[in-house]
Amino acid sequence: MEFQPPKGTRDLYGKEAKLREDLKEILKLIFQKYGFLPLESPIIENLSVLTKKSAGGSEINKEIFKLKDQGKRDLGLRFDLTVPLCRFISNNPQVKIPFKRYNIGEVFRDGPIKLGRYRQFTQADCDVIGVNSSIAEAELLKLTNDVFEKLDINYEILINSRVLVNEILEYCNIKEDKQEQALLSIDKLIKIGKAGVINELKEKRISESSINKLFDILENKNSLEDLSIIAPNGVSQIKELIKLLNIFKVKNYKFDITLARGLNYYTGTVFEVYSLNTKIKGSILGGGRYDNLISSFTDNKLNYGAVGISFGIDPIIEILKDKQKIPNITKVYIISINQLEKSIEILNELRKNNINSDIDLLQRGISKSLDYASKLEIPYVIFIGEKEAKINKLKLRSMQTGEEELLSLNELIKKLK
Amino acid sequence: MEFQPPKGTRDLYGKEAKLREDLKEILKLIFQKYGFLPLESPIIENLSVLTKKSAGGSEINKEIFKLKDQGKRDLGLRFDLTVPLCRFISNNPQVKIPFKRYNIGEVFRDGPIKLGRYRQFTQADCDVIGVNSSIAEAELLKLTNDVFEKLDINYEILINSRVLVNEILEYCNIKEDKQEQALLSIDKLIKIGKAGVINELKEKRISESSINKLFDILENKNSLEDLSIIAPNGVSQIKELIKLLNIFKVKNYKFDITLARGLNYYTGTVFEVYSLNTKIKGSILGGGRYDNLISSFTDNKLNYGAVGISFGIDPIIEILKDKQKIPNITKVYIISINQLEKSIEILNELRKNNINSDIDLLQRGISKSLDYASKLEIPYVIFIGEKEAKINKLKLRSMQTGEEELLSLNELIKKLK
Repeated sequence: MEFQPPKGTRDLYGKEAKLREDLKEILKLIFQKYGFLPLESPIIENLSVLTKKSAGGSEINKEIFKLKDQGKRDLGLRFDLTVPLCRFISNNPQVKIPFKRYNIGEVFRDGPIKLGRYRQFTQADCDVIGVNSSIAEAELLKLTNDVFEKLDINYEILINSRVLVNEILEYCNIKEDKQEQALLSIDKLIKIGKAGVINELKEKRISESSINKLFDILENKNSLEDLSIIAPNGVSQIKELIKLLNIFKVKNYKFDITLARGLNYYTGTVFEVYSLNTKIKGSILGGGRYDNLISSFTDNKLNYGAVGISFGIDPIIEILKDKQKIPNITKVYIISINQLEKSIEILNELRKNNINSDIDLLQRGISKSLDYASKLEIPYVIFIGEKEAKINKLKLRSMQTGEEELLSLNELIKKLK
Repeated sequence: MEFQPPKGTRDLYGKEAKLREDLKEILKLIFQKYGFLPLESPIIENLSVLTKKSAGGSEINKEIFKLKDQGKRDLGLRFDLTVPLCRFISNNPQVKIPFKRYNIGEVFRDGPIKLGRYRQFTQADCDVIGVNSSIAEAELLKLTNDVFEKLDINYEILINSRVLVNEILEYCNIKEDKQEQALLSIDKLIKIGKAGVINELKEKRISESSINKLFDILENKNSLEDLSIIAPNGVSQIKELIKLLNIFKVKNYKFDITLARGLNYYTGTVFEVYSLNTKIKGSILGGGRYDNLISSFTDNKLNYGAVGISFGIDPIIEILKDKQKIPNITKVYIISINQLEKSIEILNELRKNNINSDIDLLQRGISKSLDYASKLEIPYVIFIGEKEAKINKLKLRSMQTGEEELLSLNELIKKLK
């Protein structure tokens, strides 16, 4: 126990860590292609920023890791990357609008541990600040298309609108003070089923007639035309979004009336991405519009439309682990048989040619070295003994086939590159 | 104040954040070239791990950010990447030896703030576990050569040995219980000068005769031959290291008798890198051998030689900022003049061809858009109006020269790629 990482955290080593690095790199390049610039904000924030009334909501406040510095300042570990972004905008009112930034980083929630749920996890966020039109959403979802195509993951984007959901709740006589609670339950429909949601709504003292009315709509009125009388503003918001999605040629999206999203700062469109035919049942991306969050930080001094998406690095990695053959990092392992100087000369040359190479630092001899290379799944080994040093050739062995060939240094470099 | 990042931390945005990303990417590729595999350990560690007697020493213990989870477990933010590595090895005794890992990540020290010194900063570490011979040091310093050559930074590697320093202290009649304290003072020689060090040593109740003897050696006996009688073990350690440095063809190293390194876990060779002709006076890399740290974690159950280096990302960035023209991230900005559909079509094509592109999301017209592109230092803009849409040509303007040309989409892509 003593040397395990803290509860809810983990060590990632070798191939899995490499896969994460590669995924982050792919995301970064796509984010930059779409005009997003990097922001690295600190992992620690002032606690007052994290607990701003409208930021995470009371559910998340309980899960903030709190700490103090030696000057007794109240601090906390960030629980997402959106609140730090709003804090940054509030602190830098001179930034040019629209402000498009990405941030890939670690976030922390001191919550219950479940399978695949950690207390430290990684998010990759893109946000557009200062654009009220759905063009911002459309661009973000086009980017979403690009990412999952690049990763070769089958997926579906669900879209909905908080405005629409609130209009429906209103229509069902669920009053404003209970709407947020109702929303949190509806959001669990896929997870806990109809009976589960009804139970929760009853516990939250929502009347049976409201619940019946609500499920009548959720189950039967899934087309925008059906909903346009009950929820005119929400429907027109969704229609405007769909118009722009089509201009951007966004693919794989679907309107889903039950989508609500847990966080209470969303004000307009909301979206989630689910993978198809994988073991990951939860969403792999979430996002939406949060037009009031920045103004709530600045007492309305800055009033910006804002919309963002957040990729869940951890569930995406789980999918990639199952489908990808993770490439080896180290390509070749040099085994010196009493030829250290010659071997290091070759090693330097290989590395100079950008070939990931390693050498038996313990000079343990052939069989132990072969065992090591095999355990580390290094695909090639090179033997350098007296004979090889003399004729200036190198013996390369493929660890998969066992085949060996004598090569000059140049031939070797060409083969391994 | 309210929206500033916490004391001792900062937000990094745009070009500076990009420069850091690029630097980390360069380091990663070189680390992998040298056979190091990535380890991502959590930012939070159990406090008992961080405060292990021989880990950071009492000076650092005071600077640990402490926190608790809801289960009242005592936790802390890591202050370096070496202690988590030792914890990982202790928790995974089955790892194959030699174990070579890199880790690039954020570390935290709740200490005094100075110019260029932060409470959250980034380290990039390479360590070799399980090798007692200086071949591990030589490989790490060859890697160091590669990194600073790639970054085009002039530098000098200083090398010394703790064994040698301890032998000298012994010779000067400074007893074991005062050696660590003496070491910390000697290490400040460049920073606070001879008088400063003498003052500190006197405060630490080291006798005048010891101090005189010590400075006689530090100032006059800088050659290994001179020192070989006083410090036979240290000198032979340095000679063995130099032999291997020469086999690896390591450049730019120099023996420096005054180098001691602050951290008290070093047991053998120590090294630091200083940049030449830059404004950064402190070291930009530090490292050394810490053979007893892992065994102190495991009550001697695992007894591994260990040696590592740590690149200071923050000072290196300061140097790069001064010397490099940081490349633009976004290459081209599309200004639509009532041609949104056509413009988005072009935008999609550019991005499909991996050209970092953006579009006027607010549709604000020409002059505001040009101002925006100029403020964001985007080198090219494209105008798409009715005429351009009709003749299927695009007007490209260079923001630097003001030159404009009409191009087909293919010509445009060729030019911007």
